[in-house]
Amino acid sequence: MKQFEEMLAHIERELSNVPFPASPANLYDPLRYFLKLGGKRVRPVLTLMGADLFGADPESALHAALSVEVFHNFSLIHDDIMDEAPLRRNQSTVHEKWNQNIAILSGDVLLVKAYQLLAKQEARHLPDLLNLFNTTAVEVCEGQQLDMDFEKRTDVTIPEYIEMIRLKTSVLLGCALEMGAIIADASSEERKLLYRFGEHIGIAFQIQDDILDLFADPEKFGKQVGGDVIANKKTLLNLKAREMASSEQISELDQLSHQTNHTFKVDRTREIYEEMGVRGICEQLMEQHYNSAVDALSKVNRPSEHKKSLLTLAEFLMNREH
Amino acid sequence: MKQFEEMLAHIERELSNVPFPASPANLYDPLRYFLKLGGKRVRPVLTLMGADLFGADPESALHAALSVEVFHNFSLIHDDIMDEAPLRRNQSTVHEKWNQNIAILSGDVLLVKAYQLLAKQEARHLPDLLNLFNTTAVEVCEGQQLDMDFEKRTDVTIPEYIEMIRLKTSVLLGCALEMGAIIADASSEERKLLYRFGEHIGIAFQIQDDILDLFADPEKFGKQVGGDVIANKKTLLNLKAREMASSEQISELDQLSHQTNHTFKVDRTREIYEEMGVRGICEQLMEQHYNSAVDALSKVNRPSEHKKSLLTLAEFLMNREH
Repeated sequence: MKQFEEMLAHIERELSNVPFPASPANLYDPLRYFLKLGGKRVRPVLTLMGADLFGADPESALHAALSVEVFHNFSLIHDDIMDEAPLRRNQSTVHEKWNQNIAILSGDVLLVKAYQLLAKQEARHLPDLLNLFNTTAVEVCEGQQLDMDFEKRTDVTIPEYIEMIRLKTSVLLGCALEMGAIIADASSEERKLLYRFGEHIGIAFQIQDDILDLFADPEKFGKQVGGDVIANKKTLLNLKAREMASSEQISELDQLSHQTNHTFKVDRTREIYEEMGVRGICEQLMEQHYNSAVDALSKVNRPSEHKKSLLTLAEFLMNREH
Repeated sequence: MKQFEEMLAHIERELSNVPFPASPANLYDPLRYFLKLGGKRVRPVLTLMGADLFGADPESALHAALSVEVFHNFSLIHDDIMDEAPLRRNQSTVHEKWNQNIAILSGDVLLVKAYQLLAKQEARHLPDLLNLFNTTAVEVCEGQQLDMDFEKRTDVTIPEYIEMIRLKTSVLLGCALEMGAIIADASSEERKLLYRFGEHIGIAFQIQDDILDLFADPEKFGKQVGGDVIANKKTLLNLKAREMASSEQISELDQLSHQTNHTFKVDRTREIYEEMGVRGICEQLMEQHYNSAVDALSKVNRPSEHKKSLLTLAEFLMNREH
């Protein structure tokens, strides 16, 4: 993971150098604050690795990499308003620390900043980069809208749910990688394979996220186990359970959704899911997407030693309880 | 004005053809609705005229023109949330008709749509177009932030106020024109002159807006005369009056700000401003900016018959009580 850590440190350094004017302070202070909250910074590293895979200097993809990370942060600031989230990475969200109008407007300016960074790439790559970035940005918004729509629906199907997580989170991983490939002048076929690698890793990662919520080791898990269950959130586990449940089990799950004893609610839900085999089914689906990702990468026509860092990163992402 | 009306009809037609998917309906229905509310569509016409001035087919600047208008509509949707405005062009605003989250997210996607339209211009123009568009978009956000900041301040100076309206509205007129000039391959000097024409027309127009609020003929004025006075809004009139007022006049203006008889409040404010000569001073400043605009255009090295439609449009904008 040496390469990953080096790239990460480089991104972190460059991100803190993205210039924001002093004034208006209410517009730019929130951005300086939010970009310092940290995060995994996986997306920009993927862009550098995408360029590296096809033999380009990762440095040549730096602005595109920063652009993806800045876009991701824009979407977090606006999502936090919509989700009324008080905390992000254990710190106050922008709309909490300042106010909602400031969170809307500083988010807007951060989205424009993403385009400013992207526009620093070589002119000959701009049409392809812009097309990919624009399509992805629209899809991320669509995913967020579907997520909000699903909260009010009781008939969400599993394919709909997978499509929602694909749009909301996975396409940006695919985009991050493909931007690196574009900058390295990879063929459109190779570009699409790398995109697919990111897309399927993203879906597998989100499914794992749903599973870990209920089945993580509390000692190693960074947040409260069962948080999704307590909040009655729609997850893959929950949708699958309702699809498979007998009418008796449906009524027990309905009762549990009103249960105020959280420990009991979480433990009993876990038991029911285990009885029904829901965990195993979700793990299978996760592995299918992981395998599709690895399969797409294996088809990329580059020596396998060049693919090592991407595979290591994928394995790292899929073996976490953090 | 034949050319203007033809261009306007063309823009209106093309704007209604900008494609939005059917789903998610909560994301795209608001955009279909909002773009149909109409508006003066001055900005996209300026882009077409900018291209035309330098001998390019206006059609070649169509996507840039639509991009500017779509950006303008994005900013209106988000501004309406921040200003808690219930109406826009006598129809419900997006956050009123749907809800605030939908207004945030559909605004976001409309901003991306502006970039998608811009990216349809020829690749060789993209770096210049993007640089100008990005800078302008950031400035428009800065202007909106300053406007919100000013609401809470009591020490706003006239230069600060002019800078706020320049950022919030005028730079987009300059940008619209300069994009046309870029597409027509005008020199950077000619581009800047045309930008300056738009920028000063924009400031003159905004000053006129402030004056008309209190001094328009109620028969011809499209909205309530004195609306800014009733709402105690900071305008050029109000800032100039406070700058010039004696301590006696200050205390009368302070009393008037709490007056609940709106007719009296508006009429007495108008009287005081007339006594102080505030109206004339503001009209002078408006004319200075109008003259700076005309002066910049006169320096553009093109035959004067090619400048006619821009001058006619500027005169039209400055002779309105609507």
